Amino acid sequence: MTSLATPSTIRFAGIIPPVATPLHPDGTIDHASLARLVDYLIGAGCAGLFALGSTGETAYFTNAQRVEIARTIVNTTAGRVPIIAGAIELTAVRVIEVARQLIKVGVDAIVTTAPLYTLNSTAEVAAHFRTIAAAIDAPLWAYDVPVRVHSKLNLDLLMELATEGVLHGVKDSSGDDVGFRRLLAANEAAGHPLQVLTGHEMVVDAMLLAGADGVVPGFANVEAEGYVRLWEAAALGDWDTTRAEQVRINRLFEVVFQPSGLSGDATGVGAFKAAMLARGLIDHATVATGVEALDDAAVTKIRAILADHDLLPV
Amino acid sequence: MTSLATPSTIRFAGIIPPVATPLHPDGTIDHASLARLVDYLIGAGCAGLFALGSTGETAYFTNAQRVEIARTIVNTTAGRVPIIAGAIELTAVRVIEVARQLIKVGVDAIVTTAPLYTLNSTAEVAAHFRTIAAAIDAPLWAYDVPVRVHSKLNLDLLMELATEGVLHGVKDSSGDDVGFRRLLAANEAAGHPLQVLTGHEMVVDAMLLAGADGVVPGFANVEAEGYVRLWEAAALGDWDTTRAEQVRINRLFEVVFQPSGLSGDATGVGAFKAAMLARGLIDHATVATGVEALDDAAVTKIRAILADHDLLPV
Amino acid sequence: MTSLATPSTIRFAGIIPPVATPLHPDGTIDHASLARLVDYLIGAGCAGLFALGSTGETAYFTNAQRVEIARTIVNTTAGRVPIIAGAIELTAVRVIEVARQLIKVGVDAIVTTAPLYTLNSTAEVAAHFRTIAAAIDAPLWAYDVPVRVHSKLNLDLLMELATEGVLHGVKDSSGDDVGFRRLLAANEAAGHPLQVLTGHEMVVDAMLLAGADGVVPGFANVEAEGYVRLWEAAALGDWDTTRAEQVRINRLFEVVFQPSGLSGDATGVGAFKAAMLARGLIDHATVATGVEALDDAAVTKIRAILADHDLLPV
Amino acid sequence: MTSLATPSTIRFAGIIPPVATPLHPDGTIDHASLARLVDYLIGAGCAGLFALGSTGETAYFTNAQRVEIARTIVNTTAGRVPIIAGAIELTAVRVIEVARQLIKVGVDAIVTTAPLYTLNSTAEVAAHFRTIAAAIDAPLWAYDVPVRVHSKLNLDLLMELATEGVLHGVKDSSGDDVGFRRLLAANEAAGHPLQVLTGHEMVVDAMLLAGADGVVPGFANVEAEGYVRLWEAAALGDWDTTRAEQVRINRLFEVVFQPSGLSGDATGVGAFKAAMLARGLIDHATVATGVEALDDAAVTKIRAILADHDLLPV
Repeated sequence: MTSLATPSTIRFAGIIPPVATPLHPDGTIDHASLARLVDYLIGAGCAGLFALGSTGETAYFTNAQRVEIARTIVNTTAGRVPIIAGAIELTAVRVIEVARQLIKVGVDAIVTTAPLYTLNSTAEVAAHFRTIAAAIDAPLWAYDVPVRVHSKLNLDLLMELATEGVLHGVKDSSGDDVGFRRLLAANEAAGHPLQVLTGHEMVVDAMLLAGADGVVPGFANVEAEGYVRLWEAAALGDWDTTRAEQVRINRLFEVVFQPSGLSGDATGVGAFKAAMLARGLIDHATVATGVEALDDAAVTKIRAILADHDLLPV
Repeated sequence: MTSLATPSTIRFAGIIPPVATPLHPDGTIDHASLARLVDYLIGAGCAGLFALGSTGETAYFTNAQRVEIARTIVNTTAGRVPIIAGAIELTAVRVIEVARQLIKVGVDAIVTTAPLYTLNSTAEVAAHFRTIAAAIDAPLWAYDVPVRVHSKLNLDLLMELATEGVLHGVKDSSGDDVGFRRLLAANEAAGHPLQVLTGHEMVVDAMLLAGADGVVPGFANVEAEGYVRLWEAAALGDWDTTRAEQVRINRLFEVVFQPSGLSGDATGVGAFKAAMLARGLIDHATVATGVEALDDAAVTKIRAILADHDLLPV
Repeated sequence: MTSLATPSTIRFAGIIPPVATPLHPDGTIDHASLARLVDYLIGAGCAGLFALGSTGETAYFTNAQRVEIARTIVNTTAGRVPIIAGAIELTAVRVIEVARQLIKVGVDAIVTTAPLYTLNSTAEVAAHFRTIAAAIDAPLWAYDVPVRVHSKLNLDLLMELATEGVLHGVKDSSGDDVGFRRLLAANEAAGHPLQVLTGHEMVVDAMLLAGADGVVPGFANVEAEGYVRLWEAAALGDWDTTRAEQVRINRLFEVVFQPSGLSGDATGVGAFKAAMLARGLIDHATVATGVEALDDAAVTKIRAILADHDLLPV
Repeated sequence: MTSLATPSTIRFAGIIPPVATPLHPDGTIDHASLARLVDYLIGAGCAGLFALGSTGETAYFTNAQRVEIARTIVNTTAGRVPIIAGAIELTAVRVIEVARQLIKVGVDAIVTTAPLYTLNSTAEVAAHFRTIAAAIDAPLWAYDVPVRVHSKLNLDLLMELATEGVLHGVKDSSGDDVGFRRLLAANEAAGHPLQVLTGHEMVVDAMLLAGADGVVPGFANVEAEGYVRLWEAAALGDWDTTRAEQVRINRLFEVVFQPSGLSGDATGVGAFKAAMLARGLIDHATVATGVEALDDAAVTKIRAILADHDLLPV
């Protein structure tokens, strides 16, 4: 019952957006919008999907809800692209519990963070990933997101676990570009055992120049085509076009800075969902229960930015 | 289905230790030792029990295991003292899920933290507690432990929720003695709606002088009698005896500083369990899966400190 | 040129307020008010003075201004009580430079922090204090104020430097009451080589119960008599009176929480100076250049609190 | 006496290394090595020099020493390239004092951080920069280095001060690539009032793709030619060559990760100086007083890496 013996053949490269979770106004999951969103992302050329990440508001859902969300994504995708799913929980035994449910539904890989709430050493974090990898029937990835986990995954730890076959990839949202560069270099030196994705949607051109295998841009939920174009230009080595696309996306990305006075979760996903609704990609902009809604002023400004970019439906 | 209408009549005052979770060497729960420990704590004069706190290693257990642990504590206690149980989870919907299971088993109150992993505003933290309180049939307490949650609960927030009847008490492990003092003063000014417990076992004399309602000392798992004596001296206003007992306890508490090179979780609970085993209070010193074990040198030093205090069995 | 050979006979015990620095409206030092303030503090029974601390806004003054301030305090004190002066600078060579100037003016001891701006190990912090102590003709104290220095002084480091004769005392503003308690215990076990003062003005009763040698309460600039009474009650072992005085002081201390939307420096010293002006202790409430002034609303609320405590002049 | 009226015509673009400060074994400044180093850097094609930055160990020197260091750099440079000098001090009045001395010696611009040690609001940080700019006869730059200052300079603040003419440039060592990208975009939108340099020597290719005006690579003290080649390739839009040069530099940069168990200051500058000595660029590898020296094992490893890159003298 381990993924260690057979190295993963599943590749996550290119644009792999973290799928947002559309909700009905009462907070229940809007599966119809979710399926439509999945079709949109795949249709736009995304190479994979990241289910149940931070953009998917996964922390705000029960395990039963997470399974429902994963099932809709899996069923709608129908094998067109691979799916990696977040199993965000406090510690290994709890991660394993939800990861197995997600794998049963059909996701292709699992990604998780270091333990939450606990006070652990690097050796204990290594044991955490080893325990999970040995207990699930899918490739395991590490998710490095210090702003939420409050510690950064250590470079030596990642490479050791990669060499052991415990980790198949890293999704880096650490905001530490020097650390990311060192990870890419160490990974090359070790024969590229890890697939390395960046979550930093405003600097994708630079991260691809640096050698990232792929990107997990939350903002692709709002406009996926730009990231696909950016990826394709980079693949051709056309860095001026890559950068120009990034500059255009970043102007559009200003939608995220329109809300004021709200939390990080309310601002980021809230702005995405407001823009997605404005574009007609989903039916409601409702954010997870417990997260504050944007006010009308923020929504108006977001719509204006989209209009400036000709991204509102006619 | 709310605890808001009927103010809690359950009082948690005095010494209310966070019950450790004894384990078999294979990591499964040692219910026999757990029951023996509960009897020891109540027999020593503890006025209540705090189940499934950080000392109870709650983060390392599944919800099913948490329920098992709570059941043994409830059954062994058999109504002799009230029990408050930690429902440590990422967000409100998940807290509610496990809290209801614990309440069904028979715990008397629930304590939980601000959300974990998420990026929330103070207003969202307030909503978190309100949502939970409205959904469970037991008094709700707030657990303030910034070293694990990475944010501190705001004084105005606590008093607002207390006045609304959402919160019935606070377990403060913030290490912020000035903030604690201001909380005690604000609580008095508001008519004492909150029961306020401190988790700082090395400064209990000072916290009682300041006006704390009770104490949650992890170290009582090793020696509960000292804290009970300390509490009784303080209740009589005999501060010199109170302090002398604290000084004695603190010398004994040095057991916690004997391990070196280990994580916070390994060091604290590991030292407690090593001392508990040495004293014969439990059958094994095994810590939760994922946490490193103490080495023999640390255990030897811990036993020596206990011997110095005549706390080893003859 | 070292203080190591001859152990300090200067004792700093009791109430040793950090002297505020009154300013003219143009930001220059108001030496007349400063002299008046020194007389007030000594007259009220303070046992020593702490010149050029954070409450003295020392960071906002040039070394030449610091010397001027120290000179007025020394001359006004005229030997009635001992004076310890802050030499707050980036690194040892720079601390030594200003410390020598202050010693020449006549202060009795020097207090400084770990290096600022630099990235140092514990061994380097130890070298920092050793270098300074060897270069100045006055007892050296350590100032532990993590909120400003962004690191905490290590217990083993402090005790090692105390045993070597490098450090004569510690002024603790760390807000870590457990760490403070461990420092007091280690200091006792070592024969009390350190004089240990707390800077936490809202929990002085508790810190004295714990065994602190003295107190550096910024708020004594507003009302010194209360702290002197508190100290005297504690010295008699009358802890109920001690606590009652602290509770009274804390109600008065609410002046500090009246400003809103301002920085830590603007709020704390700003409120002190507004209250001092209202009481007639100084001529202007001007804060250091670079720090924002309180608005009228905050000043009005501060005056109201003073009036409630019968602390405004008739 | 202000730089506000006449916009700066001094451009800092290209490779502008932070000049290390060579020392004699007794800790005094080795002016001969310093002059040799300046000649090396200019000869290699650097477009400017950054005197008295963190790599220059400026925090460990008195103002008199800083003036000496600046004088040697100015005199050796003899106008060949512009010089910007760090004025690292606690607050504005103190920054002004040292900045004026450095300007008198002949540096072309001044760079400083937000206040140190103090607790200030964004408005107070703005006032800090405005006060300094108005008091000195040279263009003022902001230095954003949160790892040392413990706060990050706010984007809106920087753009407001740029528009007012208070700030002429930013040296960004924040490690926040998304924030840097947003700064570059805002600066473009405002007509490029700021010259924006990055201090992150391992990701220069990416930062230049993003639009940085120049680079302040500490590692250029070890090998400046690589950064100059990298810059020239980027200027031609040849991103593949740019990246290849960065990859080569990064392999060489591993010298910095050879020391173990030392502080940040000991490791970084210590490794640079050990490599500079090995290459014959300076006469001694002595680091500033107060900073621990590398051990022989680290030096041996550093020499081996240099040998692998054919960078040791024959």
